[in-house]
Amino acid sequence: MARPRTRLLDRDRIVTAALRELELNGQLTMSAVSRRLSVHVSSLYEHVKDRAELVDLIRDEVTAGIDADLTEVPEAAGWRQPLEEWLVGYRAAFARHPRAIGLLTTEPIRSHQAARGYDRVLGLLRRAGVPPQEAMATLTALECFVLGSALDAAAPDAMVQVDDDDAHGLLGEALRAEPSPDHRADHAFTTGLRLLLDGLAASAPPSSSSS
Amino acid sequence: MARPRTRLLDRDRIVTAALRELELNGQLTMSAVSRRLSVHVSSLYEHVKDRAELVDLIRDEVTAGIDADLTEVPEAAGWRQPLEEWLVGYRAAFARHPRAIGLLTTEPIRSHQAARGYDRVLGLLRRAGVPPQEAMATLTALECFVLGSALDAAAPDAMVQVDDDDAHGLLGEALRAEPSPDHRADHAFTTGLRLLLDGLAASAPPSSSSS
Repeated sequence: MARPRTRLLDRDRIVTAALRELELNGQLTMSAVSRRLSVHVSSLYEHVKDRAELVDLIRDEVTAGIDADLTEVPEAAGWRQPLEEWLVGYRAAFARHPRAIGLLTTEPIRSHQAARGYDRVLGLLRRAGVPPQEAMATLTALECFVLGSALDAAAPDAMVQVDDDDAHGLLGEALRAEPSPDHRADHAFTTGLRLLLDGLAASAPPSSSSS
Repeated sequence: MARPRTRLLDRDRIVTAALRELELNGQLTMSAVSRRLSVHVSSLYEHVKDRAELVDLIRDEVTAGIDADLTEVPEAAGWRQPLEEWLVGYRAAFARHPRAIGLLTTEPIRSHQAARGYDRVLGLLRRAGVPPQEAMATLTALECFVLGSALDAAAPDAMVQVDDDDAHGLLGEALRAEPSPDHRADHAFTTGLRLLLDGLAASAPPSSSSS
Protein backbone atom coordinates (compact mmCIF):
# COMPACT_ATOMS: atom_id res chain seq x y z
CA MET A 1 0.00 0.00 0.00
CA ALA A 2 2.89 2.36 0.59
CA ARG A 3 4.39 1.95 -2.90
CA PRO A 4 2.04 4.24 -4.86
CA ARG A 5 2.54 7.03 -2.30
CA THR A 6 6.30 6.69 -2.51
CA ARG A 7 6.17 6.81 -6.28
CA LEU A 8 4.16 10.03 -6.21
CA LEU A 9 6.86 11.60 -4.09
CA ASP A 10 9.37 13.77 -5.92
CA ARG A 11 11.83 16.53 -5.09
CA ASP A 12 9.36 19.31 -5.90
CA ARG A 13 6.78 17.96 -3.47
CA ILE A 14 9.44 17.52 -0.79
CA VAL A 15 10.71 21.09 -1.21
CA THR A 16 7.17 22.48 -1.15
CA ALA A 17 6.43 20.57 2.06
CA ALA A 18 9.72 21.70 3.62
CA LEU A 19 8.95 25.36 2.86
CA ARG A 20 5.48 24.91 4.33
CA GLU A 21 7.00 23.32 7.43
CA LEU A 22 9.38 26.29 7.80
CA GLU A 23 6.53 28.74 7.32
CA LEU A 24 4.45 27.14 10.05
CA ASN A 25 7.10 25.99 12.52
CA GLY A 26 10.21 27.98 11.69
CA GLN A 27 12.50 24.98 11.61
CA LEU A 28 13.24 21.95 9.52
CA THR A 29 13.57 18.29 10.41
CA MET A 30 13.35 15.42 7.97
CA SER A 31 10.77 13.69 10.19
CA ALA A 32 8.50 16.75 10.27
CA VAL A 33 8.66 16.97 6.47
CA SER A 34 7.87 13.27 6.12
CA ARG A 35 4.87 13.60 8.49
CA ARG A 36 3.60 16.51 6.41
CA LEU A 37 3.77 14.31 3.29
CA SER A 38 2.31 11.28 5.11
CA VAL A 39 5.28 9.14 4.12
CA HIS A 40 7.88 7.30 6.11
CA VAL A 41 11.02 9.33 6.61
CA SER A 42 13.04 6.67 4.76
CA SER A 43 11.05 7.51 1.60
CA LEU A 44 12.49 11.03 1.67
CA TYR A 45 15.99 9.63 1.49
CA GLU A 46 15.14 7.91 -1.82
CA HIS A 47 14.93 11.43 -3.31
CA VAL A 48 17.19 13.59 -1.16
CA LYS A 49 20.58 12.46 0.10
CA ASP A 50 20.42 14.21 3.46
CA ARG A 51 19.12 17.31 5.24
CA ALA A 52 21.99 19.38 3.82
CA GLU A 53 20.89 18.53 0.28
CA LEU A 54 17.30 19.45 1.15
CA VAL A 55 18.56 22.85 2.41
CA ASP A 56 20.34 23.35 -0.94
CA LEU A 57 17.14 22.50 -2.81
CA ILE A 58 15.16 24.96 -0.65
CA ARG A 59 17.77 27.64 -1.34
CA ASP A 60 17.55 27.03 -5.07
CA GLU A 61 13.75 27.19 -4.94
CA VAL A 62 13.69 30.44 -2.90
CA THR A 63 16.28 32.15 -5.10
CA ALA A 64 15.10 30.73 -8.44
CA GLY A 65 15.22 33.39 -11.11
CA ILE A 66 16.98 36.18 -9.20
CA ASP A 67 20.24 35.69 -11.09
CA ALA A 68 18.64 35.31 -14.51
CA ASP A 69 19.23 38.87 -15.65
CA LEU A 70 22.90 38.81 -14.72
CA THR A 71 23.92 36.16 -17.21
CA GLU A 72 25.33 38.64 -19.68
CA VAL A 73 25.72 42.14 -18.33
CA PRO A 74 27.30 44.24 -21.06
CA GLU A 75 30.38 46.17 -19.93
CA ALA A 76 28.61 49.42 -20.87
CA ALA A 77 25.94 48.76 -18.22
CA GLY A 78 28.52 49.45 -15.51
CA TRP A 79 28.09 47.90 -12.08
CA ARG A 80 25.66 50.03 -10.09
CA GLN A 81 22.38 49.47 -11.88
CA PRO A 82 22.78 45.70 -12.47
CA LEU A 83 23.96 45.22 -8.88
CA GLU A 84 20.98 47.19 -7.59
CA GLU A 85 18.62 45.07 -9.70
CA TRP A 86 20.12 41.89 -8.29
CA LEU A 87 19.77 43.13 -4.71
CA VAL A 88 16.15 44.18 -5.28
CA GLY A 89 15.32 40.74 -6.70
CA TYR A 90 17.21 38.99 -3.89
CA ARG A 91 15.23 40.85 -1.23
CA ALA A 92 11.91 40.16 -2.97
CA ALA A 93 12.71 36.44 -3.18
CA PHE A 94 13.53 36.13 0.52
CA ALA A 95 10.65 38.42 1.55
CA ARG A 96 8.34 35.76 0.08
CA HIS A 97 9.82 33.22 2.53
CA PRO A 98 10.79 35.19 5.65
CA ARG A 99 10.71 32.14 7.91
CA ALA A 100 13.25 30.35 5.71
CA ILE A 101 15.81 33.12 6.29
CA GLY A 102 17.04 31.83 9.66
CA LEU A 103 17.72 28.39 8.16
CA LEU A 104 19.28 29.58 4.89
CA THR A 105 21.62 32.06 6.61
CA THR A 106 23.04 29.46 8.99
CA GLU A 107 23.45 26.42 6.73
CA PRO A 108 26.45 26.26 4.38
CA ILE A 109 25.87 27.19 0.74
CA ARG A 110 26.83 24.35 -1.58
CA SER A 111 24.49 24.65 -4.54
CA HIS A 112 25.88 25.13 -8.06
CA GLN A 113 23.06 27.56 -8.82
CA ALA A 114 24.14 29.77 -5.90
CA ALA A 115 27.81 29.53 -6.94
CA ARG A 116 27.00 30.66 -10.48
CA GLY A 117 24.94 33.56 -9.14
CA TYR A 118 27.82 34.63 -6.90
CA ASP A 119 30.25 34.44 -9.84
CA ARG A 120 28.15 36.96 -11.73
CA VAL A 121 27.76 39.33 -8.78
CA LEU A 122 31.47 39.13 -8.02
CA GLY A 123 32.05 40.20 -11.63
CA LEU A 124 30.02 43.35 -10.94
CA LEU A 125 31.96 44.03 -7.72
CA ARG A 126 35.19 43.69 -9.69
CA ARG A 127 33.85 46.27 -12.13
CA ALA A 128 33.15 48.52 -9.14
CA GLY A 129 36.83 48.27 -8.24
CA VAL A 130 36.47 46.05 -5.15
CA PRO A 131 39.83 44.31 -4.64
CA PRO A 132 39.82 40.47 -4.47
CA GLN A 133 40.59 40.36 -0.74
CA GLU A 134 37.49 42.50 -0.05
CA ALA A 135 35.21 40.69 -2.51
CA MET A 136 33.66 38.05 -0.22
CA ALA A 137 33.30 40.51 2.67
CA THR A 138 31.56 43.03 0.39
CA LEU A 139 29.26 40.40 -1.11
CA THR A 140 28.37 39.10 2.36
CA ALA A 141 27.75 42.62 3.69
CA LEU A 142 25.30 43.27 0.85
CA GLU A 143 23.58 39.97 1.60
CA CYS A 144 23.32 40.79 5.31
CA PHE A 145 21.54 44.03 4.47
CA VAL A 146 19.23 42.30 1.99
CA LEU A 147 18.29 39.52 4.39
CA GLY A 148 17.66 41.92 7.28
CA SER A 149 15.51 43.96 4.89
CA ALA A 150 13.60 40.84 3.82
CA LEU A 151 12.82 40.15 7.49
CA ASP A 152 11.76 43.77 7.88
CA ALA A 153 9.46 43.47 4.85
CA ALA A 154 7.51 40.86 6.84
CA ALA A 155 7.20 43.21 9.85
CA PRO A 156 4.17 45.40 10.55
CA ASP A 157 3.86 48.78 8.82
CA ALA A 158 3.63 50.41 12.25
CA MET A 159 6.77 48.71 13.52
CA VAL A 160 7.62 51.32 16.16
CA GLN A 161 4.66 52.24 18.31
CA VAL A 162 5.24 55.07 20.76
CA ASP A 163 2.87 56.21 23.45
CA ASP A 164 2.47 59.79 24.69
CA ASP A 165 5.53 59.54 26.96
CA ASP A 166 7.81 58.84 24.02
CA ALA A 167 6.12 60.97 21.36
CA HIS A 168 7.90 64.19 22.31
CA GLY A 169 11.41 63.02 21.50
CA LEU A 170 13.23 62.69 18.20
CA LEU A 171 11.58 59.30 17.63
CA GLY A 172 8.08 60.77 17.68
CA GLU A 173 9.25 63.54 15.37
CA ALA A 174 10.92 61.11 12.95
CA LEU A 175 7.81 58.91 12.82
CA ARG A 176 5.62 61.92 12.03
CA ALA A 177 8.07 63.03 9.31
CA GLU A 178 8.12 59.61 7.58
CA PRO A 179 6.69 60.43 4.12
CA SER A 180 5.11 57.03 3.37
CA PRO A 181 4.39 55.03 6.54
CA ASP A 182 2.53 52.43 4.44
CA HIS A 183 5.76 51.69 2.60
CA ARG A 184 8.02 51.96 5.62
CA ALA A 185 10.06 48.82 4.82
CA ASP A 186 10.44 49.67 1.12
CA HIS A 187 11.62 53.18 2.00
CA ALA A 188 14.19 51.78 4.43
CA PHE A 189 15.41 49.27 1.84
CA THR A 190 15.91 51.82 -0.93
CA THR A 191 17.62 54.17 1.56
CA GLY A 192 20.07 51.51 2.75
CA LEU A 193 20.68 50.35 -0.81
CA ARG A 194 21.58 53.90 -1.82
CA LEU A 195 23.93 54.28 1.16
CA LEU A 196 25.72 50.99 0.40
CA LEU A 197 26.08 51.70 -3.31
CA ASP A 198 27.20 55.29 -2.57
CA GLY A 199 29.74 53.79 -0.18
CA LEU A 200 30.98 51.41 -2.91
CA ALA A 201 31.14 54.28 -5.40
CA ALA A 202 33.10 56.40 -2.90
CA SER A 203 35.84 53.78 -2.64
CA ALA A 204 35.76 52.80 -6.32
CA PRO A 205 38.71 53.91 -8.43
CA PRO A 206 37.78 56.76 -10.79
CA SER A 207 38.10 54.48 -13.84
CA SER A 208 35.16 52.27 -12.81
CA SER A 209 31.91 53.40 -14.39
CA SER A 210 29.01 53.57 -11.96
CA SER A 211 26.41 54.54 -14.52
CA MET B 1 0.62 22.95 46.20
CA ALA B 2 0.82 25.34 43.28
CA ARG B 3 1.17 28.50 45.38
CA PRO B 4 4.89 28.29 46.27
CA ARG B 5 5.79 27.69 42.64
CA THR B 6 3.75 30.68 41.53
CA ARG B 7 5.38 32.86 44.15
CA LEU B 8 8.85 31.91 42.93
CA LEU B 9 7.91 33.06 39.46
CA ASP B 10 9.03 36.54 38.44
CA ARG B 11 9.60 38.45 35.22
CA ASP B 12 13.29 37.61 35.05
CA ARG B 13 12.60 33.88 35.19
CA ILE B 14 9.87 34.21 32.58
CA VAL B 15 12.14 36.14 30.20
CA THR B 16 14.98 33.64 30.69
CA ALA B 17 12.61 30.76 29.93
CA ALA B 18 11.22 32.57 26.88
CA LEU B 19 14.73 33.14 25.48
CA ARG B 20 15.55 29.48 26.08
CA GLU B 21 12.35 28.46 24.31
CA LEU B 22 13.29 30.65 21.32
CA GLU B 23 16.80 29.23 21.27
CA LEU B 24 15.53 25.65 21.18
CA ASN B 25 12.36 25.97 19.13
CA GLY B 26 12.65 29.26 17.27
CA GLN B 27 9.22 30.49 18.26
CA LEU B 28 7.31 31.75 21.25
CA THR B 29 3.99 30.75 22.72
CA MET B 30 2.85 31.51 26.25
CA SER B 31 1.92 27.85 26.76
CA ALA B 32 5.40 26.64 25.75
CA VAL B 33 7.00 29.11 28.18
CA SER B 34 4.68 27.99 30.99
CA ARG B 35 5.49 24.31 30.33
CA ARG B 36 9.19 25.16 30.47
CA LEU B 37 8.65 26.75 33.92
CA SER B 38 6.33 23.95 35.06
CA VAL B 39 3.58 26.41 35.89
CA HIS B 40 0.07 26.85 34.61
CA VAL B 41 -0.14 29.36 31.80
CA SER B 42 -2.46 31.54 33.92
CA SER B 43 0.43 32.08 36.37
CA LEU B 44 2.39 33.83 33.60
CA TYR B 45 -0.38 36.38 33.22
CA GLU B 46 0.02 37.40 36.88
CA HIS B 47 3.43 38.82 35.86
CA VAL B 48 3.12 39.67 32.17
CA LYS B 49 0.02 41.30 30.66
CA ASP B 50 0.15 39.47 27.35
CA ARG B 51 2.48 37.98 24.74
CA ALA B 52 3.18 41.47 23.34
CA GLU B 53 4.48 42.60 26.73
CA LEU B 54 6.64 39.48 26.97
CA VAL B 55 8.14 40.33 23.56
CA ASP B 56 8.94 43.85 24.85
CA LEU B 57 10.65 42.34 27.91
CA ILE B 58 12.68 39.98 25.72
CA ARG B 59 13.69 42.92 23.52
CA ASP B 60 14.81 44.91 26.58
CA GLU B 61 16.79 41.92 27.87
CA VAL B 62 18.52 41.26 24.52
CA THR B 63 19.41 44.94 23.98
CA ALA B 64 20.21 45.77 27.62
CA GLY B 65 23.25 48.00 27.79
CA ILE B 66 23.79 48.73 24.11
CA ASP B 67 22.52 52.30 24.42
CA ALA B 68 24.37 53.07 27.64
CA ASP B 69 27.28 54.89 26.02
CA LEU B 70 25.04 57.15 23.99
CA THR B 71 23.44 58.95 26.94
CA GLU B 72 25.64 61.98 26.59
CA VAL B 73 27.60 62.14 23.38
CA PRO B 74 29.50 65.44 23.35
CA GLU B 75 29.01 67.49 20.21
CA ALA B 76 32.76 67.30 19.56
CA ALA B 77 32.54 63.51 19.19
CA GLY B 78 30.73 63.99 15.88
CA TRP B 79 28.38 61.28 14.61
CA ARG B 80 30.47 58.63 12.91
CA GLN B 81 32.37 57.07 15.78
CA PRO B 82 29.50 57.00 18.31
CA LEU B 83 27.13 55.65 15.65
CA GLU B 84 29.64 52.95 14.74
CA GLU B 85 30.01 51.99 18.41
CA TRP B 86 26.26 51.69 18.78
CA LEU B 87 25.98 49.49 15.68
CA VAL B 88 28.83 47.26 16.86
CA GLY B 89 27.14 46.80 20.25
CA TYR B 90 23.74 46.23 18.65
CA ARG B 91 25.11 43.46 16.45
CA ALA B 92 26.93 41.80 19.36
CA ALA B 93 23.75 41.83 21.46
CA PHE B 94 21.65 40.16 18.76
CA ALA B 95 24.44 37.77 17.79
CA ARG B 96 24.13 36.35 21.32
CA HIS B 97 20.47 35.53 20.59
CA PRO B 98 20.27 34.76 16.86
CA ARG B 99 17.09 32.73 17.17
CA ALA B 100 15.28 35.68 18.78
CA ILE B 101 15.91 37.83 15.70
CA GLY B 102 12.98 36.49 13.67
CA LEU B 103 10.58 37.27 16.52
CA LEU B 104 11.98 40.69 17.44
CA THR B 105 12.06 41.93 13.84
CA THR B 106 8.41 41.08 13.21
CA GLU B 107 6.76 42.18 16.46
CA PRO B 108 6.04 45.89 17.01
CA ILE B 109 8.47 47.83 19.19
CA ARG B 110 6.71 49.42 22.14
CA SER B 111 9.30 49.49 24.92
CA HIS B 112 10.34 52.78 26.52
CA GLN B 113 13.93 51.55 26.67
CA ALA B 114 13.94 51.03 22.90
CA ALA B 115 12.34 54.44 22.33
CA ARG B 116 15.01 56.17 24.41
CA GLY B 117 17.74 54.32 22.52
CA TYR B 118 16.26 55.39 19.18
CA ASP B 119 16.04 59.02 20.39
CA ARG B 120 19.78 59.02 21.00
CA VAL B 121 20.65 57.40 17.66
CA LEU B 122 18.33 59.76 15.81
CA GLY B 123 20.28 62.60 17.42
CA LEU B 124 23.45 61.22 15.82
CA LEU B 125 21.75 60.89 12.43
CA ARG B 126 20.65 64.51 12.72
CA ARG B 127 24.28 65.45 13.38
CA ALA B 128 25.19 63.53 10.22
CA GLY B 129 22.80 65.78 8.32
CA VAL B 130 20.06 63.20 7.67
CA PRO B 131 16.83 65.15 7.04
CA PRO B 132 13.80 64.31 9.26
CA GLN B 133 11.86 62.62 6.45
CA GLU B 134 14.80 60.22 5.89
CA ALA B 135 15.51 59.59 9.58
CA MET B 136 13.35 56.50 10.22
CA ALA B 137 14.29 54.96 6.86
CA THR B 138 17.99 55.48 7.59
CA LEU B 139 17.70 54.10 11.13
CA THR B 140 15.78 51.06 9.86
CA ALA B 141 18.29 50.45 7.06
CA LEU B 142 21.14 50.42 9.59
CA GLU B 143 19.15 47.99 11.75
CA CYS B 144 18.46 45.70 8.78
CA PHE B 145 22.17 45.46 8.10
CA VAL B 146 22.98 44.86 11.78
CA LEU B 147 20.35 42.14 12.17
CA GLY B 148 21.40 40.37 8.96
CA SER B 149 24.98 40.54 10.23
CA ALA B 150 23.94 39.11 13.61
CA LEU B 151 22.36 36.15 11.79
CA ASP B 152 25.55 35.80 9.74
CA ALA B 153 27.65 35.79 12.93
CA ALA B 154 25.83 32.59 13.89
CA ALA B 155 26.62 30.98 10.51
CA PRO B 156 29.55 28.62 9.89
CA ASP B 157 32.98 30.08 9.15
CA ALA B 158 33.01 28.13 5.89
CA MET B 159 29.62 29.48 4.80
CA VAL B 160 30.19 29.04 1.07
CA GLN B 161 31.54 25.62 0.19
CA VAL B 162 32.46 25.13 -3.44
CA ASP B 163 33.45 21.89 -5.07
CA ASP B 164 35.92 21.51 -7.96
CA ASP B 165 33.32 22.43 -10.57
CA ASP B 166 32.78 25.85 -9.01
CA ALA B 167 36.32 26.57 -7.78
CA HIS B 168 37.54 27.98 -11.11
CA GLY B 169 35.19 30.96 -11.21
CA LEU B 170 35.34 34.30 -9.45
CA LEU B 171 33.77 32.73 -6.35
CA GLY B 172 36.63 30.29 -5.89
CA GLU B 173 39.10 33.11 -6.43
CA ALA B 174 37.34 35.39 -3.95
CA LEU B 175 37.25 32.65 -1.30
CA ARG B 176 40.98 32.01 -1.73
CA ALA B 177 41.70 35.77 -1.47
CA GLU B 178 39.70 36.21 1.78
CA PRO B 179 42.41 37.35 4.23
CA SER B 180 40.88 35.94 7.42
CA PRO B 181 38.45 33.09 6.73
CA ASP B 182 38.20 32.43 10.48
CA HIS B 183 36.72 35.88 10.93
CA ARG B 184 34.61 35.85 7.80
CA ALA B 185 31.49 37.32 9.46
CA ASP B 186 33.40 40.01 11.35
CA HIS B 187 35.17 41.07 8.15
CA ALA B 188 31.85 41.30 6.30
CA PHE B 189 30.32 43.32 9.13
CA THR B 190 33.13 45.89 9.31
CA THR B 191 33.10 46.15 5.51
CA GLY B 192 29.36 46.81 5.33
CA LEU B 193 29.56 49.23 8.26
CA ARG B 194 32.25 51.21 6.43
CA LEU B 195 30.19 51.29 3.22
CA LEU B 196 27.05 52.48 5.04
CA LEU B 197 28.88 55.16 7.03
CA ASP B 198 30.80 56.25 3.91
CA GLY B 199 27.43 56.47 2.16
CA LEU B 200 26.06 58.63 5.01
CA ALA B 201 29.16 60.82 4.92
CA ALA B 202 28.83 61.23 1.14
CA SER B 203 25.34 62.68 1.48
CA ALA B 204 26.08 64.65 4.64
CA PRO B 205 26.28 68.44 4.28
CA PRO B 206 29.86 69.71 4.53
CA SER B 207 29.15 71.34 7.91
CA SER B 208 28.52 68.02 9.70
CA SER B 209 31.64 66.68 11.36
CA SER B 210 32.26 63.00 10.71
CA SER B 211 35.30 62.75 12.92
